[in-house]
Amino acid sequence: MKKRTVPSRLYLTQNEMPTQWLNVRAVMKNKPEPMLNPATQKPMTHAELSSVFCDEAIRQELDNTTQWIDIPEEVVRYYHMFRPSPLCRAYELEAALDTPAKIYYKFEGNNTSGSHKLNSAAPQAFYAKKQGLKGVTTETGAGQWGTALSMACAHFNLDLNVFMVKVSAQQKPYRKAVMETYGASVTPSPSDTTSVGRSILKDHPNTGGSLGCAISEAIEVATKANGAYRYTLGSVLNHVLLHQSIVGVEAKIAMDKLGEYPDIVVGCAGGGSNLGGIMSPYIEDKINGKKIQLLGVEPANCPTLTQGKMTYDFGDTGKTTPMIKMYTLGSDFIPPADHAGGLRYHGMSPIISKLYEDKIMDAIAVDEKSIFASARLFAKCETILPAPESAHAIHAAILEAEKCKATGEAKTILFCLSGTGYFDLAAYMKK
Amino acid sequence: MKKRTVPSRLYLTQNEMPTQWLNVRAVMKNKPEPMLNPATQKPMTHAELSSVFCDEAIRQELDNTTQWIDIPEEVVRYYHMFRPSPLCRAYELEAALDTPAKIYYKFEGNNTSGSHKLNSAAPQAFYAKKQGLKGVTTETGAGQWGTALSMACAHFNLDLNVFMVKVSAQQKPYRKAVMETYGASVTPSPSDTTSVGRSILKDHPNTGGSLGCAISEAIEVATKANGAYRYTLGSVLNHVLLHQSIVGVEAKIAMDKLGEYPDIVVGCAGGGSNLGGIMSPYIEDKINGKKIQLLGVEPANCPTLTQGKMTYDFGDTGKTTPMIKMYTLGSDFIPPADHAGGLRYHGMSPIISKLYEDKIMDAIAVDEKSIFASARLFAKCETILPAPESAHAIHAAILEAEKCKATGEAKTILFCLSGTGYFDLAAYMKK
Repeated sequence: MKKRTVPSRLYLTQNEMPTQWLNVRAVMKNKPEPMLNPATQKPMTHAELSSVFCDEAIRQELDNTTQWIDIPEEVVRYYHMFRPSPLCRAYELEAALDTPAKIYYKFEGNNTSGSHKLNSAAPQAFYAKKQGLKGVTTETGAGQWGTALSMACAHFNLDLNVFMVKVSAQQKPYRKAVMETYGASVTPSPSDTTSVGRSILKDHPNTGGSLGCAISEAIEVATKANGAYRYTLGSVLNHVLLHQSIVGVEAKIAMDKLGEYPDIVVGCAGGGSNLGGIMSPYIEDKINGKKIQLLGVEPANCPTLTQGKMTYDFGDTGKTTPMIKMYTLGSDFIPPADHAGGLRYHGMSPIISKLYEDKIMDAIAVDEKSIFASARLFAKCETILPAPESAHAIHAAILEAEKCKATGEAKTILFCLSGTGYFDLAAYMKK
Repeated sequence: MKKRTVPSRLYLTQNEMPTQWLNVRAVMKNKPEPMLNPATQKPMTHAELSSVFCDEAIRQELDNTTQWIDIPEEVVRYYHMFRPSPLCRAYELEAALDTPAKIYYKFEGNNTSGSHKLNSAAPQAFYAKKQGLKGVTTETGAGQWGTALSMACAHFNLDLNVFMVKVSAQQKPYRKAVMETYGASVTPSPSDTTSVGRSILKDHPNTGGSLGCAISEAIEVATKANGAYRYTLGSVLNHVLLHQSIVGVEAKIAMDKLGEYPDIVVGCAGGGSNLGGIMSPYIEDKINGKKIQLLGVEPANCPTLTQGKMTYDFGDTGKTTPMIKMYTLGSDFIPPADHAGGLRYHGMSPIISKLYEDKIMDAIAVDEKSIFASARLFAKCETILPAPESAHAIHAAILEAEKCKATGEAKTILFCLSGTGYFDLAAYMKK
């Protein structure tokens, strides 16, 4: 058997884990544009945001200059229950592809939420508790973010009201059940518990709901709770990408330990949180001229970066949020009905958008059939059943490895395996 | 915050992992009784077993004397994709219980099969391939074993035909889908692909099937394939417990590293595979008079050890297997219809049975309501959603920790968290 030079799974010790998040805005020469108040067209202030978000989340959201931000000890302890996550060498996939490339992936699905979302759910819940709040609200579609937040809120002893798109709640009763097991209250949306929900139900009594409507209900409940609740979001925003930097910083520590530096870093792109996370420690090098490729992979069915427009747009379908400068397909964009692979968001993290506009990173769009074929190959080789979202990154890594086979070049590829597909088997059965 | 002396999750490096399985029969003064041929009432010979099982599995099944057995390099490499599994210190659960006890658990659910079953699936698939077989067959009820075996067969390039109890296949389409994703062929049982299946369907055209029937179909296909297939089983048998010793041996290496020795070792008891695994390295100490308690935990709805009889019985409901000397509730035993917590097997591993008969280990039976309450508490504290089976061990560990709170004694508790409950949310919703 061929000798193996590095472990197929490398776990750092808890002492080797990063103790700070990396704020990539501090190293970007051109900062992402500020959110605008749609009424005044002026940048949103801390005060304007404070009825919606936690104070600390807002501070982090608006901070473009502090490069390293301490992870609170309470959050470090929570992270220690599922981190460090392993850096994996895909020996079996490399063998199946017969490629000279070295393929590494950071596996973020080793926790009950099944994805990287828990990295941001933990600090968001902690900051809410520290501020003395009674609880938080959020929306969820597929349920990964809602599950992660319900786990974190159980730990920090915080109420959680999840508005779950009604049709998702009906189709995925187990996702609802897992959130309820952790103590969350899950309300199918639209509901009669909010005025916006009642108004929608009046006009559309049989609607299955939408993410836009669920966001509006979650924000209404948060802002009308006499200051005892705030709203939380699991992607897109700057403070979420800040928290997700743990993925990349941890990966870089492990890669450094192995004496490896990637030629290409790959992540799937929906709202941008896991992509922003895995790329984070390599962005400064790239800006300073180092030869490294940073690659976002999106579905051809929702090609935000590759086909969208860089402009100010609303963050939600209901047009209730501040205006965000980002690549967008338009806030009324809906992917084709047969789209099963996740990553359905019309917009993109302002940080990712700016990096893409400035050509610091690249993006490609890939089709659904290919990503499920790559997901199956990956599962058979590497044992892990990937989330369809993560399969976009897998597919791009495979394309790169196949190029290496053709050219004979032994590139080092690093991608983020952001989550597992245990709750996505309906999509696997369809495709 | 209270200082923490050990990491909350300890991963050994791959180099620190055991390279041998521990055969506990070698240290048992009284060996488990041999399987008997029901026709002759004489011990089953290698030759008699060889049309059903792989040669190497039979050698291991019949070997009562070799204490340490090398893990083949190919299996070590497969293990490296999901092992070492973490040894966890349940700091958050300890705090919630306000107990002086130190609670450790070995978490075996960090893989796509969601349980320890993969530890035996890998060597069973490897040995089948090494013997030059085309494939293997098996049965599955809830689906954990079938999933693990489908993963291992994908890796070792082996055909797999899983007979899945028809009603389970209908109720759990996603379990079927995950096995198919790994390339297994899943046949709802009873089927018209076997003579035993056709005969059952003729008499009971509307039956939802049973494990006993699925076993009979799997054995028929294995034995009628001109020697190209063999049958595999995921629990009960001696060679399965041998493979599961990796759980305990690895746990002991990690405990030793922390300078810890358990006062009590706990595992849930169905067929006995994870219990046998976690206890394995402590059995010799116990036999030699060391003060340590070994505890099996079974459901009050299926109280094999605590209410069963130590006698020769069939391994399956269909009475097609050799006779096994074990604690049994009778091969026609079926748990109450509202039983949701797994561990439904009427019998018990002959090794576990002998250890219990000889009072080297203890057993308790616990009720369903309590185990789901403990599962919920555990999930909220420790982030991991446990399998209902594993929740039996959790519940017993909590009972011990509560005793410690009452007495002030700071016992060290070690239990096996054998799996996750992602596919068991219907049971959580019911209870």
